[in-house]
Amino acid sequence: MSIFVNITDKPLDSAEVLNYVRHPHAGAIVYFGGTTRNTFEGKEVVSLAYEAHPRLAIKTLESIAHEAKAKFQSVHKIAIVHRTGVVPVATESVMIAVSSTHRKEGWLCGEWVLEKVKERAEIWKIEKYADGDSIYKENDVSNVLSRT
Amino acid sequence: MSIFVNITDKPLDSAEVLNYVRHPHAGAIVYFGGTTRNTFEGKEVVSLAYEAHPRLAIKTLESIAHEAKAKFQSVHKIAIVHRTGVVPVATESVMIAVSSTHRKEGWLCGEWVLEKVKERAEIWKIEKYADGDSIYKENDVSNVLSRT
Repeated sequence: MSIFVNITDKPLDSAEVLNYVRHPHAGAIVYFGGTTRNTFEGKEVVSLAYEAHPRLAIKTLESIAHEAKAKFQSVHKIAIVHRTGVVPVATESVMIAVSSTHRKEGWLCGEWVLEKVKERAEIWKIEKYADGDSIYKENDVSNVLSRT
Repeated sequence: MSIFVNITDKPLDSAEVLNYVRHPHAGAIVYFGGTTRNTFEGKEVVSLAYEAHPRLAIKTLESIAHEAKAKFQSVHKIAIVHRTGVVPVATESVMIAVSSTHRKEGWLCGEWVLEKVKERAEIWKIEKYADGDSIYKENDVSNVLSRT
Protein backbone atom coordinates (compact mmCIF):
# COMPACT_ATOMS: atom_id res chain seq x y z
CA MET A 1 0.00 0.00 0.00
CA SER A 2 1.21 3.46 -0.78
CA ILE A 3 -1.31 5.46 1.23
CA PHE A 4 -2.15 5.59 4.93
CA VAL A 5 -5.00 7.61 6.44
CA ASN A 6 -6.36 7.77 9.95
CA ILE A 7 -8.68 9.73 12.23
CA THR A 8 -8.06 9.35 15.94
CA ASP A 9 -8.72 11.05 19.25
CA LYS A 10 -5.18 10.17 20.41
CA PRO A 11 -2.10 12.46 20.06
CA LEU A 12 -0.58 12.24 16.57
CA ASP A 13 2.93 10.85 16.07
CA SER A 14 5.13 12.58 13.48
CA ALA A 15 7.70 9.73 13.52
CA GLU A 16 4.98 7.30 12.51
CA VAL A 17 3.92 9.25 9.41
CA LEU A 18 7.52 10.12 8.42
CA ASN A 19 8.59 6.49 8.72
CA TYR A 20 5.53 5.31 6.84
CA VAL A 21 6.39 7.40 3.74
CA ARG A 22 10.14 6.62 3.78
CA HIS A 23 11.04 4.91 0.48
CA PRO A 24 14.32 3.83 -1.24
CA HIS A 25 13.38 5.66 -4.48
CA ALA A 26 12.55 8.89 -2.68
CA GLY A 27 14.96 11.81 -2.41
CA ALA A 28 12.48 13.96 -0.51
CA ILE A 29 10.10 13.68 2.42
CA VAL A 30 7.79 16.65 2.86
CA TYR A 31 5.71 17.00 6.02
CA PHE A 32 3.10 19.43 7.25
CA GLY A 33 1.79 19.62 10.82
CA GLY A 34 -1.15 21.89 11.61
CA THR A 35 -0.86 23.08 15.21
CA THR A 36 -3.23 24.88 17.59
CA ARG A 37 -2.44 28.58 17.97
CA ASN A 38 -3.12 30.46 21.20
CA THR A 39 -4.55 33.45 19.33
CA PHE A 40 -6.90 33.95 16.40
CA GLU A 41 -7.37 37.43 14.92
CA GLY A 42 -6.04 38.95 18.12
CA LYS A 43 -8.33 36.98 20.47
CA GLU A 44 -6.94 34.54 23.01
CA VAL A 45 -7.91 30.97 22.18
CA VAL A 46 -8.69 28.90 25.28
CA SER A 47 -9.54 25.67 23.50
CA LEU A 48 -9.71 24.17 20.06
CA ALA A 49 -11.52 20.92 19.35
CA TYR A 50 -12.31 18.94 16.22
CA GLU A 51 -15.34 16.82 15.38
CA ALA A 52 -15.44 14.44 12.43
CA HIS A 53 -17.80 12.10 10.70
CA PRO A 54 -15.16 9.35 10.83
CA ARG A 55 -16.52 7.00 8.16
CA LEU A 56 -17.09 9.73 5.58
CA ALA A 57 -13.89 11.57 6.49
CA ILE A 58 -11.73 8.45 6.11
CA LYS A 59 -13.20 7.85 2.64
CA THR A 60 -12.54 11.47 1.71
CA LEU A 61 -8.92 11.32 2.95
CA GLU A 62 -8.41 8.11 0.94
CA SER A 63 -9.83 9.75 -2.18
CA ILE A 64 -7.58 12.77 -1.75
CA ALA A 65 -4.50 10.54 -1.33
CA HIS A 66 -5.36 8.47 -4.42
CA GLU A 67 -6.01 11.60 -6.48
CA ALA A 68 -2.68 13.04 -5.33
CA LYS A 69 -0.84 9.83 -6.33
CA ALA A 70 -2.40 10.07 -9.82
CA LYS A 71 -1.64 13.79 -10.15
CA PHE A 72 1.96 13.74 -8.83
CA GLN A 73 3.52 10.73 -10.48
CA SER A 74 6.92 10.79 -8.77
CA VAL A 75 5.21 10.63 -5.36
CA HIS A 76 5.74 7.24 -3.71
CA LYS A 77 3.74 7.29 -0.48
CA ILE A 78 1.27 9.60 1.27
CA ALA A 79 0.08 9.66 4.89
CA ILE A 80 -2.77 11.83 6.19
CA VAL A 81 -3.85 11.68 9.84
CA HIS A 82 -6.29 13.95 11.69
CA ARG A 83 -6.99 14.20 15.40
CA THR A 84 -10.43 14.77 16.95
CA GLY A 85 -11.38 16.15 20.35
CA VAL A 86 -9.52 18.94 22.13
CA VAL A 87 -6.06 19.65 20.68
CA PRO A 88 -3.78 21.61 23.05
CA VAL A 89 -1.83 24.71 21.98
CA ALA A 90 1.35 23.98 19.95
CA THR A 91 0.09 20.45 19.26
CA GLU A 92 -0.78 18.88 15.90
CA SER A 93 -4.38 18.39 14.78
CA VAL A 94 -3.37 17.20 11.32
CA MET A 95 -0.22 15.66 9.85
CA ILE A 96 0.46 15.13 6.16
CA ALA A 97 3.60 13.41 4.86
CA VAL A 98 4.64 12.71 1.29
CA SER A 99 7.71 11.05 -0.25
CA SER A 100 8.78 11.77 -3.82
CA THR A 101 11.69 11.12 -6.14
CA HIS A 102 12.38 14.84 -6.56
CA ARG A 103 11.82 17.60 -4.05
CA LYS A 104 9.71 19.92 -6.22
CA GLU A 105 6.92 17.42 -6.62
CA GLY A 106 7.02 16.63 -2.91
CA TRP A 107 6.38 20.29 -2.01
CA LEU A 108 3.60 20.64 -4.58
CA CYS A 109 1.90 17.42 -3.52
CA GLY A 110 2.11 18.20 0.22
CA GLU A 111 0.50 21.59 -0.25
CA TRP A 112 -2.15 20.22 -2.64
CA VAL A 113 -3.15 17.45 -0.22
CA LEU A 114 -3.41 19.90 2.69
CA GLU A 115 -5.68 22.27 0.78
CA LYS A 116 -7.94 19.41 -0.32
CA VAL A 117 -8.19 18.09 3.25
CA LYS A 118 -9.22 21.55 4.43
CA GLU A 119 -11.76 21.92 1.61
CA ARG A 120 -13.29 18.47 1.55
CA ALA A 121 -12.82 16.38 4.70
CA GLU A 122 -15.89 15.99 6.94
CA ILE A 123 -14.08 17.53 9.91
CA TRP A 124 -15.21 20.59 11.88
CA LYS A 125 -13.46 22.89 14.31
CA ILE A 126 -14.83 24.45 17.50
CA GLU A 127 -12.74 27.37 18.73
CA LYS A 128 -13.42 28.95 22.15
CA TYR A 129 -12.04 32.35 23.14
CA ALA A 130 -11.12 33.93 26.46
CA ASP A 131 -13.89 36.55 25.96
CA GLY A 132 -16.54 33.82 26.00
CA ASP A 133 -17.16 33.70 22.23
CA SER A 134 -16.98 30.49 20.34
CA ILE A 135 -16.95 29.71 16.63
CA TYR A 136 -18.00 26.50 14.93
CA LYS A 137 -16.21 26.18 11.61
CA GLU A 138 -15.61 23.87 8.76
CA ASN A 139 -11.97 22.87 8.74
CA ASP A 140 -11.16 25.62 6.24
CA VAL A 141 -11.12 28.89 8.21
CA SER A 142 -12.74 30.65 5.25
CA ASN A 143 -15.98 28.74 5.96
CA VAL A 144 -17.45 30.00 9.20
CA LEU A 145 -20.71 28.15 9.75
CA SER A 146 -22.13 29.86 12.81
CA ARG A 147 -21.19 32.05 15.72
CA THR A 148 -22.73 31.25 19.10
CA MET B 1 16.80 31.87 20.09
CA SER B 2 14.66 31.30 17.08
CA ILE B 3 17.14 29.42 14.91
CA PHE B 4 18.99 26.14 15.35
CA VAL B 5 21.60 24.81 12.94
CA ASN B 6 23.90 21.81 13.17
CA ILE B 7 26.28 19.64 11.14
CA THR B 8 26.91 16.17 12.50
CA ASP B 9 28.14 12.75 11.44
CA LYS B 10 25.41 11.13 13.58
CA PRO B 11 21.93 10.08 12.31
CA LEU B 12 19.52 13.02 12.21
CA ASP B 13 16.44 13.11 14.45
CA SER B 14 13.22 14.48 12.95
CA ALA B 15 11.51 14.70 16.36
CA GLU B 16 14.29 16.98 17.58
CA VAL B 17 13.87 19.53 14.76
CA LEU B 18 10.06 19.38 14.83
CA ASN B 19 9.98 19.91 18.58
CA TYR B 20 12.52 22.70 18.34
CA VAL B 21 10.32 24.76 15.98
CA ARG B 22 7.04 24.10 17.84
CA HIS B 23 5.58 27.47 18.98
CA PRO B 24 2.28 28.61 20.59
CA HIS B 25 1.76 31.30 17.91
CA ALA B 26 2.33 28.87 15.04
CA GLY B 27 -0.49 27.21 13.13
CA ALA B 28 1.89 25.38 10.81
CA ILE B 29 5.03 23.30 10.99
CA VAL B 30 6.63 22.53 7.62
CA TYR B 31 9.43 19.98 7.37
CA PHE B 32 11.66 18.72 4.60
CA GLY B 33 13.90 15.65 4.81
CA GLY B 34 16.35 14.94 2.00
CA THR B 35 16.88 11.17 1.77
CA THR B 36 19.39 8.98 -0.09
CA ARG B 37 17.91 7.35 -3.20
CA ASN B 38 19.08 3.97 -4.43
CA THR B 39 19.13 5.14 -8.06
CA PHE B 40 20.32 8.25 -9.89
CA GLU B 41 19.48 8.70 -13.58
CA GLY B 42 18.88 4.97 -13.86
CA LYS B 43 22.16 3.92 -12.22
CA GLU B 44 22.21 1.95 -8.99
CA VAL B 45 23.69 4.00 -6.14
CA VAL B 46 25.80 1.91 -3.77
CA SER B 47 26.81 4.70 -1.42
CA LEU B 48 26.28 8.37 -0.84
CA ALA B 49 28.48 10.41 1.46
CA TYR B 50 28.72 14.08 2.37
CA GLU B 51 31.74 16.18 3.24
CA ALA B 52 31.50 19.62 4.78
CA HIS B 53 33.71 22.46 5.86
CA PRO B 54 31.93 22.55 9.23
CA ARG B 55 32.94 26.02 10.42
CA LEU B 56 32.05 27.74 7.15
CA ALA B 57 28.94 25.62 6.59
CA ILE B 58 27.54 26.39 10.06
CA LYS B 59 27.99 30.13 9.42
CA THR B 60 26.27 29.77 6.06
CA LEU B 61 23.33 27.85 7.57
CA GLU B 62 23.00 30.53 10.27
CA SER B 63 22.99 33.27 7.62
CA ILE B 64 20.34 31.47 5.59
CA ALA B 65 18.14 31.03 8.68
CA HIS B 66 18.49 34.69 9.67
CA GLU B 67 17.74 35.84 6.11
CA ALA B 68 14.67 33.59 6.04
CA LYS B 69 13.42 35.05 9.35
CA ALA B 70 13.75 38.57 7.89
CA LYS B 71 12.09 37.60 4.59
CA PHE B 72 9.17 35.58 6.02
CA GLN B 73 7.91 37.63 8.92
CA SER B 74 5.27 35.26 10.26
CA VAL B 75 7.91 32.53 10.64
CA HIS B 76 8.70 31.87 14.31
CA LYS B 77 11.52 29.32 14.36
CA ILE B 78 13.79 27.58 11.85
CA ALA B 79 15.97 24.48 12.24
CA ILE B 80 18.52 23.28 9.64
CA VAL B 81 20.64 20.19 10.25
CA HIS B 82 22.94 18.36 7.83
CA ARG B 83 24.64 15.02 8.20
CA THR B 84 28.17 14.20 6.97
CA GLY B 85 29.76 10.85 6.14
CA VAL B 86 27.94 7.95 4.52
CA VAL B 87 24.14 8.30 4.58
CA PRO B 88 22.28 4.99 3.97
CA VAL B 89 19.44 4.64 1.44
CA ALA B 90 16.07 6.00 2.65
CA THR B 91 17.83 7.95 5.40
CA GLU B 92 17.98 11.73 5.84
CA SER B 93 21.09 13.75 4.97
CA VAL B 94 19.37 17.07 5.61
CA MET B 95 16.38 18.18 7.66
CA ILE B 96 14.75 21.59 7.55
CA ALA B 97 11.85 22.59 9.81
CA VAL B 98 9.98 25.88 9.99
CA SER B 99 7.05 27.09 12.12
CA SER B 100 4.82 29.94 10.99
CA THR B 101 1.58 31.63 11.97
CA HIS B 102 -0.05 30.78 8.62
CA ARG B 103 0.59 27.76 6.44
CA LYS B 104 1.35 29.57 3.18
CA GLU B 105 4.40 31.32 4.58
CA GLY B 106 5.61 28.07 6.15
CA TRP B 107 5.63 26.31 2.77
CA LEU B 108 7.34 29.23 1.04
CA CYS B 109 9.97 29.58 3.75
CA GLY B 110 10.74 25.84 3.90
CA GLU B 111 11.31 25.65 0.18
CA TRP B 112 13.35 28.87 0.11
CA VAL B 113 15.64 27.66 2.92
CA LEU B 114 16.18 24.31 1.22
CA GLU B 115 17.17 25.91 -2.10
CA LYS B 116 19.59 28.29 -0.35
CA VAL B 117 21.20 25.42 1.57
CA LYS B 118 21.71 23.54 -1.69
CA GLU B 119 23.12 26.63 -3.42
CA ARG B 120 25.31 28.03 -0.70
CA ALA B 121 26.31 25.63 2.08
CA GLU B 122 29.92 24.37 1.99
CA ILE B 123 28.79 20.74 1.77
CA TRP B 124 29.71 18.29 -0.99
CA LYS B 125 28.29 14.94 -2.05
CA ILE B 126 30.17 11.83 -3.21
CA GLU B 127 27.92 9.35 -5.01
CA LYS B 128 29.24 5.87 -5.96
CA TYR B 129 27.46 3.64 -8.47
CA ALA B 130 27.25 -0.12 -8.92
CA ASP B 131 29.05 0.22 -12.29
CA GLY B 132 32.17 1.58 -10.54
CA ASP B 133 31.64 5.25 -11.47
CA SER B 134 31.61 7.91 -8.84
CA ILE B 135 30.66 11.57 -8.94
CA TYR B 136 31.84 14.33 -6.64
CA LYS B 137 29.24 17.09 -6.55
CA GLU B 138 28.35 20.28 -4.85
CA ASN B 139 25.22 19.74 -2.81
CA ASP B 140 23.06 21.06 -5.65
CA VAL B 141 22.84 18.26 -8.23
CA SER B 142 23.03 20.85 -11.01
CA ASN B 143 26.67 21.53 -10.08
CA VAL B 144 28.74 18.52 -10.98
CA LEU B 145 32.35 19.33 -10.15
CA SER B 146 34.23 16.34 -11.49
CA ARG B 147 33.75 12.76 -12.58
CA THR B 148 36.42 10.25 -11.55
